[in-house]
Amino acid sequence: MNDQVMQNFLIKRAFLTPDRPAIHFAGITYTFSEAYNRAHTIAGQLAGCGLKKGQYAGALLSNHVDTVFVYLACHLLGVKAVILNNRLTAAEIAWQMKDSQSAFLITESRFSSKYRELEETLPNITIINKEVLFESSVSPPLIVDEINLNEVCTIMYTSGTTGHPKGVLQTYGNHWWSAIGSALNLGLTEEDCWLCTVPLFHISGYSILMRSIIYGMKMVVLESFDEKEAINIIRNEKVTIMSVVSTMLTRMEEKLKEDKLPAQFRCMLLGGGPASKALLEKCQAKQIPVYQTYGMTETSSQIVTLSPEYSFSKLGSAGKALFPSQLKIVRTNGEKASPTEAGEILVKGPNVTKGYLNKKEETKSKIVDGWLSTGDIGYLDEEGFLYVLDRRSDLIISGGENVYPAEIEGILASHPAISDAGVIGLKDEQWGEVPAAFIVKRKEINEVDILQFCQQKLAKYKIPKKVMFIEEIPRNAAKKILRRELRKLLE
Amino acid sequence: MNDQVMQNFLIKRAFLTPDRPAIHFAGITYTFSEAYNRAHTIAGQLAGCGLKKGQYAGALLSNHVDTVFVYLACHLLGVKAVILNNRLTAAEIAWQMKDSQSAFLITESRFSSKYRELEETLPNITIINKEVLFESSVSPPLIVDEINLNEVCTIMYTSGTTGHPKGVLQTYGNHWWSAIGSALNLGLTEEDCWLCTVPLFHISGYSILMRSIIYGMKMVVLESFDEKEAINIIRNEKVTIMSVVSTMLTRMEEKLKEDKLPAQFRCMLLGGGPASKALLEKCQAKQIPVYQTYGMTETSSQIVTLSPEYSFSKLGSAGKALFPSQLKIVRTNGEKASPTEAGEILVKGPNVTKGYLNKKEETKSKIVDGWLSTGDIGYLDEEGFLYVLDRRSDLIISGGENVYPAEIEGILASHPAISDAGVIGLKDEQWGEVPAAFIVKRKEINEVDILQFCQQKLAKYKIPKKVMFIEEIPRNAAKKILRRELRKLLE
Repeated sequence: MNDQVMQNFLIKRAFLTPDRPAIHFAGITYTFSEAYNRAHTIAGQLAGCGLKKGQYAGALLSNHVDTVFVYLACHLLGVKAVILNNRLTAAEIAWQMKDSQSAFLITESRFSSKYRELEETLPNITIINKEVLFESSVSPPLIVDEINLNEVCTIMYTSGTTGHPKGVLQTYGNHWWSAIGSALNLGLTEEDCWLCTVPLFHISGYSILMRSIIYGMKMVVLESFDEKEAINIIRNEKVTIMSVVSTMLTRMEEKLKEDKLPAQFRCMLLGGGPASKALLEKCQAKQIPVYQTYGMTETSSQIVTLSPEYSFSKLGSAGKALFPSQLKIVRTNGEKASPTEAGEILVKGPNVTKGYLNKKEETKSKIVDGWLSTGDIGYLDEEGFLYVLDRRSDLIISGGENVYPAEIEGILASHPAISDAGVIGLKDEQWGEVPAAFIVKRKEINEVDILQFCQQKLAKYKIPKKVMFIEEIPRNAAKKILRRELRKLLE
Repeated sequence: MNDQVMQNFLIKRAFLTPDRPAIHFAGITYTFSEAYNRAHTIAGQLAGCGLKKGQYAGALLSNHVDTVFVYLACHLLGVKAVILNNRLTAAEIAWQMKDSQSAFLITESRFSSKYRELEETLPNITIINKEVLFESSVSPPLIVDEINLNEVCTIMYTSGTTGHPKGVLQTYGNHWWSAIGSALNLGLTEEDCWLCTVPLFHISGYSILMRSIIYGMKMVVLESFDEKEAINIIRNEKVTIMSVVSTMLTRMEEKLKEDKLPAQFRCMLLGGGPASKALLEKCQAKQIPVYQTYGMTETSSQIVTLSPEYSFSKLGSAGKALFPSQLKIVRTNGEKASPTEAGEILVKGPNVTKGYLNKKEETKSKIVDGWLSTGDIGYLDEEGFLYVLDRRSDLIISGGENVYPAEIEGILASHPAISDAGVIGLKDEQWGEVPAAFIVKRKEINEVDILQFCQQKLAKYKIPKKVMFIEEIPRNAAKKILRRELRKLLE
């Protein structure tokens, strides 16, 4: 419990530093005062549609400054926003809307085919199209001046490898402490500016917005990731920090050629799995400071981070838990694992979710005494640095040996002729399961070359027994590999 | 309530950044790992004396690195430290020891005359002399690995202008949120280093220690303030931030002559009342960035801060409440005052004390719905900047008009021939009370000159009716004027 009252974050920020830049989008910069005024107007328009404090409302929106204002309007109203991944099908959206009992869906014309389909399956839901909303009359909104850190701010559904997705409750406190933990690790200066090219509907993007409000920091929003545009905007808008995943970082590093990022740029926050040594070396050569992280929707973004000074001595590590948080590795019987012994990763801290929406039993079994079972497998080295091995559900067990796909993928991706790789388990008469690899080529390479390369790097049982070449590794919005898609390809 | 569990701050910090410099004292720098080891050893020695989690222990110590280690040892043991002002008489110390029911007093030889007297009046108290303690055997201490932010960390007695002092409960959460509020305002970089020349037994000094642990920042401790030594150590130890009161800042500014502080120095955090315009102008000329603040023991240091960019446009203001905190001005009937209308200052936030030790009734009357009545008088301007007028108990009421001593002192101190000034109320047949001024001269000046100067600056009823010249204005450890001492001089 984090039962602490504070002033509404946006109101406080607009009061403290009204004239500081808050958001830059499509060539226009908005101050905190302007952001507050826009959010206040939208809050009035949403109130006119019937939205009230405590209600759930779906938000199906693109990466746009309007989306930021809509999210902030929800803060002002005390509306719990169910943040929808805009790549979902109408059926998947319907499922999340029903599960969260959202009576409203705030969306925009570009998703009209989806919400029209939705209107048929869920006729009782009020669809609010932002283009219409922004032209509507403004009711005087009932503004929530004080919030309790224990109140739910947002709901984000986790993709889940099996079964239906679960709605992760993210409180104001979860977002607050996540921002504070990050600031204590990365520092904070008045010159800071965070580039958001990741989806705002994902915690990686939403957490940048929360940091912007809490820190009084400018955020730059792009509609989507493009390496050339990202590099240009880092230069033009004096960006100091950017959130990336490996594939984005690879593309930026390649695009930079002989250039360097400007001196003010101080942090490339890398999520979604460890980077290859080859990529880290290239980044070091171009003085790109890479902070590797581990986090998830349930921890409101990063909870474990590795500073650049450890990039090489602790290659592949995600680092240590941020100041407000803790982590431990446990055996299947619940005992604490010894150093270097792999087990399930458990995390605890004020940024950790209090549970899943309307899922008391699942919450109880996943969170015990404040410790969340992540389902991920990892170990701590002698100095307490975390190494994430894999998602438990993706674990390949081959002849009694544990095989972690991410490890093999890391090796494959380090080959100069391979640009991306994905590994899954393949049923096998003799061994139960064996690894199978999907390869995206950068240059010409064949199966024999790849297997020879693996033989130098991997124990025999870890070497893929099947190699397939494809155009692209299927990944979700968070750039995590969709192994079930790979499995379909195999079939 | 701030019922949040976290790892013990020192344990976490020593784990995260063991090799970073933590404390510099008398030419020696200790890393966080070394600080942890020293504190752990002392915790073992204190455990050997019988100290246990949850107990209260008095600490009568000087500004010294050992004091830092003793305080941190108390954190490790979960002992609540009653931090004693070492300028107190034995009788005053005895009162605080009895009030807090402390069974132990951790002290050092230089205070032997005080603690010997104490041994006679309170024979049941165990006196622990640090010089003896540090030579004693080490018992394995029972370390508190996790703390709850709601637990009491320290007790500090407020001086109080009337009656007995009250023990202010400062929780781990109070200290934590104070540090976070400050970081969100001042920023935080890996190069930061905070100079502590104020007493460690005062919240201004103790809060620097807490920031050091929470931020992973070096603190430099001096035994006492000396302007030459302070300037030298800012240069040699690359200090970036220093806590001062006006008199210290005046002396440093004068000492600097034509020099400037090095470029890395970024913040002079000024507490204990507003600075004169003359001082601010001189500081500006020497590029000393002054952040004016308002705070008290009950708020675990600053709660309101003014950035340098507002130094002149908001001259005399203490600024706005830090991000996690709120403030309001109320009339005597409890209603919110209008902008520019003076009233009592009320503050709220997670850094505000939960009350006074063993004083339920006083706590209830001082803290209502989380709002602490400070007893101080001030107003907010149209933009919400706070102007502190005076301590309520020092208010002079003259012919029905309110006269605020601090205002007159500010005017007097701005005269080039006056180095310091103190004002109190003097009983008067006609007006009830009239202001009387005590002056410390810088150059030759007489009463007529001073009154002429005041006539240009102050309404008639505010002009001192009596002017006395003295050698020094009596101030407490926090450099607040001891008006009752001035009153004695008058008698």
